[in-house]
Amino acid sequence: MQTKDIDYAADGAILRGFLALNESAGRVPGVLVFHEGLGLGDFAMEKARQLASLGYVALAADMFGERRQAKNLQEVSTIVAGLRAEPERLLARAHAALATLAGLQQVDASRLAAIGFCFGGSVVLELARSGADLKAAVSFHGVLATKQPASEGQVKASILVLTGAEDPLAPPDQVAAFEDEMRAAKVADWQVVSYGNTLHGFTNPAADGSMMRTALYHEQSDRRSWAAMQAFLGEMLA
Amino acid sequence: MQTKDIDYAADGAILRGFLALNESAGRVPGVLVFHEGLGLGDFAMEKARQLASLGYVALAADMFGERRQAKNLQEVSTIVAGLRAEPERLLARAHAALATLAGLQQVDASRLAAIGFCFGGSVVLELARSGADLKAAVSFHGVLATKQPASEGQVKASILVLTGAEDPLAPPDQVAAFEDEMRAAKVADWQVVSYGNTLHGFTNPAADGSMMRTALYHEQSDRRSWAAMQAFLGEMLA
Repeated sequence: MQTKDIDYAADGAILRGFLALNESAGRVPGVLVFHEGLGLGDFAMEKARQLASLGYVALAADMFGERRQAKNLQEVSTIVAGLRAEPERLLARAHAALATLAGLQQVDASRLAAIGFCFGGSVVLELARSGADLKAAVSFHGVLATKQPASEGQVKASILVLTGAEDPLAPPDQVAAFEDEMRAAKVADWQVVSYGNTLHGFTNPAADGSMMRTALYHEQSDRRSWAAMQAFLGEMLA
Repeated sequence: MQTKDIDYAADGAILRGFLALNESAGRVPGVLVFHEGLGLGDFAMEKARQLASLGYVALAADMFGERRQAKNLQEVSTIVAGLRAEPERLLARAHAALATLAGLQQVDASRLAAIGFCFGGSVVLELARSGADLKAAVSFHGVLATKQPASEGQVKASILVLTGAEDPLAPPDQVAAFEDEMRAAKVADWQVVSYGNTLHGFTNPAADGSMMRTALYHEQSDRRSWAAMQAFLGEMLA
Protein backbone atom coordinates (compact mmCIF):
# COMPACT_ATOMS: atom_id res chain seq x y z
CA MET A 1 0.00 0.00 0.00
CA GLN A 2 1.16 3.51 -0.77
CA THR A 3 0.32 6.42 1.48
CA LYS A 4 1.26 10.05 1.12
CA ASP A 5 0.24 13.53 2.08
CA ILE A 6 -1.47 15.58 -0.56
CA ASP A 7 -1.99 19.33 -0.38
CA TYR A 8 -4.86 21.24 -1.91
CA ALA A 9 -6.30 24.68 -1.32
CA ALA A 10 -9.76 26.08 -0.67
CA ASP A 11 -11.42 28.84 1.33
CA GLY A 12 -8.10 30.57 1.83
CA ALA A 13 -6.59 27.56 3.55
CA ILE A 14 -3.95 24.95 2.72
CA LEU A 15 -5.60 21.60 3.30
CA ARG A 16 -3.30 18.66 3.87
CA GLY A 17 -5.03 15.41 2.99
CA PHE A 18 -3.78 11.87 3.41
CA LEU A 19 -3.95 9.49 0.47
CA ALA A 20 -3.92 5.70 0.63
CA LEU A 21 -4.03 3.38 -2.34
CA ASN A 22 -2.93 0.03 -3.65
CA GLU A 23 -1.40 -0.87 -6.97
CA SER A 24 -4.15 -1.53 -9.49
CA ALA A 25 -4.36 -2.31 -13.17
CA GLY A 26 -6.85 0.39 -14.08
CA ARG A 27 -8.78 3.22 -12.50
CA VAL A 28 -10.68 2.30 -9.34
CA PRO A 29 -13.43 4.01 -7.33
CA GLY A 30 -12.39 6.78 -4.97
CA VAL A 31 -13.62 7.31 -1.42
CA LEU A 32 -13.26 10.43 0.71
CA VAL A 33 -12.91 10.15 4.47
CA PHE A 34 -14.00 13.11 6.58
CA HIS A 35 -12.47 13.29 10.03
CA GLU A 36 -14.15 13.80 13.38
CA GLY A 37 -14.04 17.04 15.37
CA LEU A 38 -10.47 16.56 16.52
CA GLY A 39 -9.12 17.05 13.01
CA LEU A 40 -7.36 14.78 10.54
CA GLY A 41 -5.36 12.35 12.66
CA ASP A 42 -4.62 8.67 13.12
CA PHE A 43 -8.26 7.63 13.23
CA ALA A 44 -9.30 8.93 9.80
CA MET A 45 -5.94 7.95 8.27
CA GLU A 46 -6.43 4.38 9.46
CA LYS A 47 -9.89 4.38 7.87
CA ALA A 48 -8.28 5.52 4.60
CA ARG A 49 -5.81 2.64 4.82
CA GLN A 50 -8.66 0.20 5.44
CA LEU A 51 -10.51 1.51 2.41
CA ALA A 52 -7.36 1.16 0.31
CA SER A 53 -7.08 -2.43 1.45
CA LEU A 54 -10.62 -2.92 0.14
CA GLY A 55 -9.43 -1.78 -3.29
CA TYR A 56 -10.42 1.88 -3.25
CA VAL A 57 -8.31 4.98 -3.60
CA ALA A 58 -8.98 6.74 -0.31
CA LEU A 59 -8.37 10.38 0.48
CA ALA A 60 -8.72 11.45 4.09
CA ALA A 61 -9.61 15.10 3.74
CA ASP A 62 -8.37 17.91 5.93
CA MET A 63 -11.23 20.23 6.84
CA PHE A 64 -9.38 22.42 9.36
CA GLY A 65 -6.34 23.51 7.32
CA GLU A 66 -2.67 22.53 7.65
CA ARG A 67 -3.89 19.40 9.36
CA ARG A 68 -4.70 21.27 12.51
CA GLN A 69 -5.62 19.12 15.49
CA ALA A 70 -7.94 20.30 18.21
CA LYS A 71 -6.37 19.86 21.63
CA ASN A 72 -9.54 19.68 23.66
CA LEU A 73 -13.32 19.75 23.48
CA GLN A 74 -13.39 23.54 23.71
CA GLU A 75 -11.22 23.83 20.61
CA VAL A 76 -13.32 21.24 18.78
CA SER A 77 -16.44 23.23 19.52
CA THR A 78 -14.92 26.50 18.36
CA ILE A 79 -13.57 25.16 15.05
CA VAL A 80 -16.57 23.02 14.24
CA ALA A 81 -19.10 25.68 15.19
CA GLY A 82 -17.20 28.15 13.01
CA LEU A 83 -17.38 25.94 9.94
CA ARG A 84 -20.95 24.85 10.56
CA ALA A 85 -22.03 28.47 10.93
CA GLU A 86 -20.70 29.18 7.43
CA PRO A 87 -21.83 26.24 5.32
CA GLU A 88 -20.38 27.74 2.15
CA ARG A 89 -16.89 27.62 3.68
CA LEU A 90 -17.40 24.09 4.88
CA LEU A 91 -18.68 23.10 1.45
CA ALA A 92 -15.81 24.83 -0.39
CA ARG A 93 -13.35 22.75 1.60
CA ALA A 94 -15.29 19.52 1.15
CA HIS A 95 -15.74 20.06 -2.60
CA ALA A 96 -12.01 20.78 -2.94
CA ALA A 97 -11.26 17.41 -1.40
CA LEU A 98 -13.68 15.77 -3.81
CA ALA A 99 -12.12 17.52 -6.80
CA THR A 100 -8.66 16.48 -5.64
CA LEU A 101 -9.72 12.84 -5.37
CA ALA A 102 -11.55 12.95 -8.71
CA GLY A 103 -8.49 14.38 -10.40
CA LEU A 104 -6.12 11.60 -9.43
CA GLN A 105 -4.98 9.45 -12.33
CA GLN A 106 -5.71 6.23 -10.40
CA VAL A 107 -9.33 7.22 -9.75
CA ASP A 108 -12.43 6.52 -11.78
CA ALA A 109 -14.13 9.88 -11.33
CA SER A 110 -17.51 8.43 -12.23
CA ARG A 111 -17.41 6.25 -9.12
CA LEU A 112 -16.88 8.36 -6.03
CA ALA A 113 -18.14 8.07 -2.48
CA ALA A 114 -17.65 9.82 0.84
CA ILE A 115 -17.72 8.60 4.40
CA GLY A 116 -17.35 10.58 7.59
CA PHE A 117 -17.30 10.31 11.35
CA CYS A 118 -18.96 12.64 13.89
CA PHE A 119 -18.29 16.12 12.45
CA GLY A 120 -17.17 14.37 9.25
CA GLY A 121 -20.52 12.57 9.07
CA SER A 122 -22.26 15.91 8.92
CA VAL A 123 -19.79 17.08 6.27
CA VAL A 124 -20.67 14.06 4.13
CA LEU A 125 -24.35 14.86 4.42
CA GLU A 126 -23.77 18.53 3.57
CA LEU A 127 -21.81 17.42 0.51
CA ALA A 128 -24.67 15.17 -0.56
CA ARG A 129 -27.24 17.94 0.07
CA SER A 130 -25.20 20.27 -2.11
CA GLY A 131 -25.62 17.92 -5.06
CA ALA A 132 -22.07 16.59 -5.20
CA ASP A 133 -21.38 13.88 -7.76
CA LEU A 134 -21.22 11.03 -5.31
CA LYS A 135 -22.56 7.54 -5.76
CA ALA A 136 -22.67 6.99 -2.03
CA ALA A 137 -22.49 9.01 1.18
CA VAL A 138 -22.09 7.37 4.57
CA SER A 139 -22.38 9.13 7.92
CA PHE A 140 -21.09 7.39 11.05
CA HIS A 141 -22.52 9.04 14.21
CA GLY A 142 -22.80 12.36 12.40
CA VAL A 143 -25.01 15.28 13.32
CA LEU A 144 -28.03 15.04 11.00
CA ALA A 145 -29.42 18.54 11.45
CA THR A 146 -28.57 21.21 8.89
CA LYS A 147 -28.92 24.89 8.15
CA GLN A 148 -29.50 24.10 4.48
CA PRO A 149 -31.94 21.23 4.07
CA ALA A 150 -31.80 19.35 0.79
CA SER A 151 -34.05 20.78 -1.85
CA GLU A 152 -36.12 18.59 -4.11
CA GLY A 153 -34.16 16.69 -6.73
CA GLN A 154 -30.79 18.04 -5.65
CA VAL A 155 -29.27 15.00 -3.98
CA LYS A 156 -27.49 12.58 -6.30
CA ALA A 157 -25.82 10.35 -3.72
CA SER A 158 -27.33 7.26 -2.18
CA ILE A 159 -27.27 7.95 1.54
CA LEU A 160 -26.58 5.63 4.44
CA VAL A 161 -26.84 6.99 7.97
CA LEU A 162 -25.36 4.84 10.74
CA THR A 163 -26.32 6.25 14.11
CA GLY A 164 -26.37 5.32 17.77
CA ALA A 165 -29.89 5.16 19.18
CA GLU A 166 -28.60 6.84 22.35
CA ASP A 167 -26.41 9.46 20.65
CA PRO A 168 -27.30 12.80 22.27
CA LEU A 169 -25.89 14.60 19.21
CA ALA A 170 -28.42 12.80 16.98
CA PRO A 171 -31.43 12.16 19.22
CA PRO A 172 -34.61 10.46 17.95
CA ASP A 173 -36.36 13.71 17.02
CA GLN A 174 -33.34 14.75 14.94
CA VAL A 175 -33.36 11.39 13.18
CA ALA A 176 -37.08 11.82 12.50
CA ALA A 177 -36.47 15.33 11.13
CA PHE A 178 -33.70 13.99 8.88
CA GLU A 179 -36.01 11.32 7.50
CA ASP A 180 -38.62 14.00 6.87
CA GLU A 181 -35.99 16.07 5.07
CA MET A 182 -35.14 13.08 2.84
CA ARG A 183 -38.85 12.57 2.07
CA ALA A 184 -39.47 16.22 1.33
CA ALA A 185 -36.46 16.42 -0.99
CA LYS A 186 -37.54 13.20 -2.71
CA VAL A 187 -34.06 11.75 -2.23
CA ALA A 188 -34.04 8.64 -4.40
CA ASP A 189 -32.10 6.38 -2.07
CA TRP A 190 -31.59 6.71 1.66
CA GLN A 191 -31.37 4.43 4.66
CA VAL A 192 -31.00 4.95 8.39
CA VAL A 193 -29.57 2.29 10.68
CA SER A 194 -30.12 2.84 14.38
CA TYR A 195 -27.94 0.82 16.76
CA GLY A 196 -29.48 0.20 20.18
CA ASN A 197 -27.52 0.89 23.38
CA THR A 198 -25.05 2.92 21.36
CA LEU A 199 -23.80 6.42 22.16
CA HIS A 200 -21.89 8.99 20.12
CA GLY A 201 -18.47 8.17 18.66
CA PHE A 202 -19.09 4.45 18.70
CA THR A 203 -16.51 3.63 15.99
CA ASN A 204 -13.58 5.19 17.80
CA PRO A 205 -11.70 2.98 20.30
CA ALA A 206 -10.27 6.16 21.83
CA ALA A 207 -13.77 7.30 22.82
CA ASP A 208 -13.80 6.21 26.45
CA GLY A 209 -16.09 8.86 27.87
CA SER A 210 -13.20 10.89 29.27
CA MET A 211 -13.18 13.74 26.74
CA MET A 212 -16.90 13.68 26.14
CA ARG A 213 -19.08 11.72 28.54
CA THR A 214 -21.53 10.73 25.82
CA ALA A 215 -18.97 9.50 23.27
CA LEU A 216 -18.21 5.85 23.85
CA TYR A 217 -16.69 3.13 21.74
CA HIS A 218 -19.05 0.23 21.01
CA GLU A 219 -17.19 -2.71 19.48
CA GLN A 220 -20.27 -4.49 18.11
CA SER A 221 -21.76 -1.36 16.53
CA ASP A 222 -18.34 -0.41 15.18
CA ARG A 223 -18.00 -3.78 13.48
CA ARG A 224 -21.57 -3.83 12.21
CA SER A 225 -21.46 -0.29 10.86
CA TRP A 226 -18.19 -0.89 9.03
CA ALA A 227 -19.63 -4.06 7.47
CA ALA A 228 -22.77 -2.14 6.48
CA MET A 229 -20.60 0.50 4.82
CA GLN A 230 -18.56 -2.13 3.00
CA ALA A 231 -21.68 -3.75 1.59
CA PHE A 232 -23.10 -0.36 0.62
CA LEU A 233 -19.93 0.84 -1.12
CA GLY A 234 -19.65 -2.52 -2.84
CA GLU A 235 -23.19 -2.09 -4.13
CA MET A 236 -22.99 1.55 -5.17
CA LEU A 237 -19.46 1.63 -6.59
CA ALA A 238 -19.65 -1.66 -8.50
CA MET B 1 -31.66 -30.20 -0.39
CA GLN B 2 -34.39 -32.06 1.45
CA THR B 3 -37.79 -30.55 2.07
CA LYS B 4 -40.78 -32.07 3.81
CA ASP B 5 -43.93 -31.20 5.65
CA ILE B 6 -43.85 -31.54 9.39
CA ASP B 7 -46.92 -31.56 11.63
CA TYR B 8 -47.05 -30.34 15.18
CA ALA B 9 -49.88 -29.33 17.48
CA ALA B 10 -50.63 -26.34 19.68
CA ASP B 11 -53.57 -24.26 20.80
CA GLY B 12 -55.99 -26.98 19.67
CA ALA B 13 -54.77 -26.81 16.09
CA ILE B 14 -52.75 -29.05 13.82
CA LEU B 15 -49.95 -26.91 12.44
CA ARG B 16 -48.33 -28.04 9.22
CA GLY B 17 -44.83 -26.62 8.91
CA PHE B 18 -42.42 -26.90 6.02
CA LEU B 19 -38.88 -28.06 6.69
CA ALA B 20 -35.86 -27.44 4.47
CA LEU B 21 -32.34 -28.65 5.15
CA ASN B 22 -29.15 -29.79 3.54
CA GLU B 23 -26.98 -32.76 4.38
CA SER B 24 -24.49 -31.81 7.06
CA ALA B 25 -21.87 -33.57 9.12
CA GLY B 26 -23.07 -32.40 12.52
CA ARG B 27 -25.82 -30.36 14.10
CA VAL B 28 -26.35 -26.91 12.57
CA PRO B 29 -28.22 -23.80 13.70
CA GLY B 30 -31.97 -23.74 13.14
CA VAL B 31 -34.01 -20.85 11.82
CA LEU B 32 -37.78 -20.43 12.00
CA VAL B 33 -39.62 -18.59 9.23
CA PHE B 34 -42.94 -16.96 10.10
CA HIS B 35 -45.26 -16.33 7.18
CA GLU B 36 -47.08 -13.19 6.20
CA GLY B 37 -50.81 -12.63 6.67
CA LEU B 38 -51.80 -14.85 3.76
CA GLY B 39 -50.62 -17.98 5.57
CA LEU B 40 -47.83 -20.46 4.94
CA GLY B 41 -47.38 -20.57 1.19
CA ASP B 42 -44.76 -20.39 -1.53
CA PHE B 43 -43.19 -17.19 -0.26
CA ALA B 44 -42.22 -18.42 3.21
CA MET B 45 -41.33 -21.87 1.86
CA GLU B 46 -38.91 -20.31 -0.60
CA LYS B 47 -37.32 -18.34 2.25
CA ALA B 48 -36.88 -21.63 4.13
CA ARG B 49 -35.15 -23.13 1.09
CA GLN B 50 -32.88 -20.08 0.84
CA LEU B 51 -31.95 -20.43 4.51
CA ALA B 52 -31.21 -24.13 3.99
CA SER B 53 -28.93 -23.22 1.12
CA LEU B 54 -27.09 -20.96 3.58
CA GLY B 55 -26.45 -23.99 5.78
CA TYR B 56 -29.28 -23.70 8.30
CA VAL B 57 -32.09 -26.09 9.11
CA ALA B 58 -35.12 -23.96 8.33
CA LEU B 59 -38.66 -24.55 9.51
CA ALA B 60 -41.38 -22.43 7.96
CA ALA B 61 -43.99 -22.41 10.70
CA ASP B 62 -47.73 -22.62 10.16
CA MET B 63 -49.50 -20.11 12.39
CA PHE B 64 -53.03 -20.58 11.01
CA GLY B 65 -53.50 -24.35 11.31
CA GLU B 66 -53.66 -27.03 8.62
CA ARG B 67 -51.73 -24.64 6.44
CA ARG B 68 -54.76 -22.49 5.90
CA GLN B 69 -54.37 -19.77 3.26
CA ALA B 70 -56.31 -16.52 3.40
CA LYS B 71 -58.09 -15.84 0.11
CA ASN B 72 -58.35 -12.11 0.41
CA LEU B 73 -57.48 -9.14 2.57
CA GLN B 74 -60.72 -9.48 4.55
CA GLU B 75 -59.78 -13.01 5.54
CA VAL B 76 -56.22 -11.94 6.39
CA SER B 77 -57.59 -9.27 8.69
CA THR B 78 -59.98 -11.64 10.43
CA ILE B 79 -57.43 -14.38 11.09
CA VAL B 80 -54.58 -12.06 12.02
CA ALA B 81 -56.73 -9.86 14.24
CA GLY B 82 -58.01 -12.98 15.99
CA LEU B 83 -54.53 -14.20 16.82
CA ARG B 84 -53.21 -10.78 17.74
CA ALA B 85 -56.16 -10.21 20.08
CA GLU B 86 -55.17 -13.34 21.99
CA PRO B 87 -51.38 -13.15 22.32
CA GLU B 88 -51.22 -16.32 24.43
CA ARG B 89 -52.69 -18.31 21.52
CA LEU B 90 -50.31 -16.72 19.05
CA LEU B 91 -47.41 -17.43 21.40
CA ALA B 92 -48.46 -21.03 22.00
CA ARG B 93 -48.35 -21.64 18.26
CA ALA B 94 -45.04 -19.85 17.81
CA HIS B 95 -43.40 -21.63 20.75
CA ALA B 96 -44.61 -24.98 19.39
CA ALA B 97 -42.81 -24.24 16.13
CA LEU B 98 -39.67 -23.35 18.07
CA ALA B 99 -39.86 -26.54 20.13
CA THR B 100 -40.36 -28.59 16.97
CA LEU B 101 -37.29 -27.05 15.35
CA ALA B 102 -35.23 -27.40 18.53
CA GLY B 103 -36.16 -31.07 18.77
CA LEU B 104 -34.89 -32.06 15.34
CA GLN B 105 -31.83 -34.28 15.42
CA GLN B 106 -30.08 -32.17 12.78
CA VAL B 107 -30.45 -28.98 14.85
CA ASP B 108 -28.12 -27.46 17.41
CA ALA B 109 -30.78 -26.31 19.88
CA SER B 110 -28.38 -23.83 21.45
CA ARG B 111 -28.26 -21.85 18.20
CA LEU B 112 -31.76 -20.89 17.10
CA ALA B 113 -33.12 -17.85 15.33
CA ALA B 114 -36.42 -16.67 13.90
CA ILE B 115 -37.28 -14.46 10.98
CA GLY B 116 -40.69 -13.29 9.83
CA PHE B 117 -42.46 -11.20 7.25
CA CYS B 118 -45.37 -8.78 7.79
CA PHE B 119 -47.61 -10.62 10.28
CA GLY B 120 -44.72 -13.05 10.76
CA GLY B 121 -42.44 -10.16 11.66
CA SER B 122 -44.73 -9.29 14.53
CA VAL B 123 -44.79 -12.97 15.56
CA VAL B 124 -41.00 -13.00 15.73
CA LEU B 125 -41.03 -9.92 17.95
CA GLU B 126 -43.71 -11.41 20.22
CA LEU B 127 -41.61 -14.54 20.52
CA ALA B 128 -38.58 -12.45 21.48
CA ARG B 129 -40.63 -10.41 23.97
CA SER B 130 -41.84 -13.64 25.59
CA GLY B 131 -38.25 -14.57 26.41
CA ALA B 132 -37.85 -17.36 23.87
CA ASP B 133 -34.40 -18.95 23.65
CA LEU B 134 -33.40 -17.32 20.40
CA LYS B 135 -30.00 -15.96 19.50
CA ALA B 136 -31.51 -13.72 16.84
CA ALA B 137 -34.91 -12.38 15.82
CA VAL B 138 -35.44 -10.60 12.51
CA SER B 139 -38.60 -8.76 11.48
CA PHE B 140 -39.12 -7.84 7.82
CA HIS B 141 -41.84 -5.17 7.47
CA GLY B 142 -43.55 -6.41 10.61
CA VAL B 143 -45.95 -4.51 12.83
CA LEU B 144 -43.88 -3.30 15.79
CA ALA B 145 -46.71 -2.41 18.18
CA THR B 146 -47.72 -4.91 20.83
CA LYS B 147 -50.27 -5.56 23.55
CA GLN B 148 -47.56 -7.01 25.76
CA PRO B 149 -44.45 -4.81 25.73
CA ALA B 150 -41.20 -6.48 26.71
CA SER B 151 -40.51 -6.30 30.41
CA GLU B 152 -37.07 -5.54 31.75
CA GLY B 153 -34.53 -8.32 31.34
CA GLN B 154 -36.94 -10.67 29.60
CA VAL B 155 -35.64 -10.55 26.03
CA LYS B 156 -32.80 -12.96 25.25
CA ALA B 157 -32.70 -12.56 21.46
CA SER B 158 -30.65 -10.02 19.57
CA ILE B 159 -33.22 -8.10 17.54
CA LEU B 160 -32.99 -6.74 14.01
CA VAL B 161 -35.93 -4.76 12.64
CA LEU B 162 -35.96 -4.14 8.88
CA THR B 163 -38.68 -1.68 8.02
CA GLY B 164 -39.87 0.51 5.18
CA ALA B 165 -39.73 4.20 6.06
CA GLU B 166 -43.07 4.64 4.26
CA ASP B 167 -44.77 1.53 5.64
CA PRO B 168 -48.18 2.68 6.93
CA LEU B 169 -48.34 -0.43 9.14
CA ALA B 170 -45.15 0.66 10.92
CA PRO B 171 -45.16 4.47 10.72
CA PRO B 172 -42.42 6.62 12.32
CA ASP B 173 -44.23 7.05 15.63
CA GLN B 174 -44.61 3.28 15.93
CA VAL B 175 -40.92 2.82 15.21
CA ALA B 176 -40.12 5.43 17.86
CA ALA B 177 -42.41 3.66 20.35
CA PHE B 178 -40.70 0.36 19.58
CA GLU B 179 -37.28 1.88 20.21
CA ASP B 180 -38.58 3.27 23.50
CA GLU B 181 -39.90 -0.19 24.39
CA MET B 182 -36.45 -1.67 23.72
CA ARG B 183 -34.83 1.01 25.90
CA ALA B 184 -37.31 0.58 28.73
CA ALA B 185 -36.88 -3.20 28.72
CA LYS B 186 -33.09 -2.81 28.61
CA VAL B 187 -32.90 -5.18 25.66
CA ALA B 188 -29.20 -5.95 25.33
CA ASP B 189 -28.98 -5.91 21.55
CA TRP B 190 -31.35 -4.31 19.08
CA GLN B 191 -31.11 -2.50 15.75
CA VAL B 192 -33.60 -0.83 13.44
CA VAL B 193 -32.93 -0.34 9.74
CA SER B 194 -35.24 2.07 7.98
CA TYR B 195 -35.29 1.90 4.16
CA GLY B 196 -36.28 5.13 2.44
CA ASN B 197 -38.96 5.20 -0.27
CA THR B 198 -40.09 1.76 0.84
CA LEU B 199 -43.64 0.68 1.60
CA HIS B 200 -45.07 -2.39 3.31
CA GLY B 201 -44.36 -5.89 2.00
CA PHE B 202 -41.18 -4.84 0.23
CA THR B 203 -39.62 -8.30 0.17
CA ASN B 204 -42.47 -9.93 -1.71
CA PRO B 205 -42.38 -9.78 -5.52
CA ALA B 206 -46.11 -10.56 -5.51
CA ALA B 207 -46.83 -7.31 -3.67
CA ASP B 208 -47.86 -5.13 -6.58
CA GLY B 209 -50.31 -2.86 -4.81
CA SER B 210 -53.35 -4.74 -6.12
CA MET B 211 -54.34 -6.56 -2.94
CA MET B 212 -53.16 -3.84 -0.59
CA ARG B 213 -52.38 -0.45 -2.05
CA THR B 214 -49.60 0.21 0.44
CA ALA B 215 -47.79 -3.13 0.03
CA LEU B 216 -45.26 -2.89 -2.76
CA TYR B 217 -42.23 -4.91 -3.74
CA HIS B 218 -38.95 -2.95 -3.63
CA GLU B 219 -36.12 -4.91 -5.24
CA GLN B 220 -33.28 -2.90 -3.71
CA SER B 221 -34.69 -2.98 -0.18
CA ASP B 222 -35.48 -6.68 -0.60
CA ARG B 223 -31.89 -7.41 -1.55
CA ARG B 224 -30.42 -5.18 1.13
CA SER B 225 -32.62 -6.52 3.90
CA TRP B 226 -31.86 -10.13 3.02
CA ALA B 227 -28.12 -9.35 3.03
CA ALA B 228 -28.51 -7.60 6.39
CA MET B 229 -30.27 -10.68 7.75
CA GLN B 230 -27.57 -12.97 6.39
CA ALA B 231 -24.82 -10.96 8.07
CA PHE B 232 -26.79 -10.83 11.32
CA LEU B 233 -27.52 -14.56 11.41
CA GLY B 234 -23.91 -15.26 10.50
CA GLU B 235 -22.84 -13.13 13.45
CA MET B 236 -25.32 -14.41 16.02
CA LEU B 237 -25.37 -18.10 15.11
CA ALA B 238 -21.63 -18.53 14.61
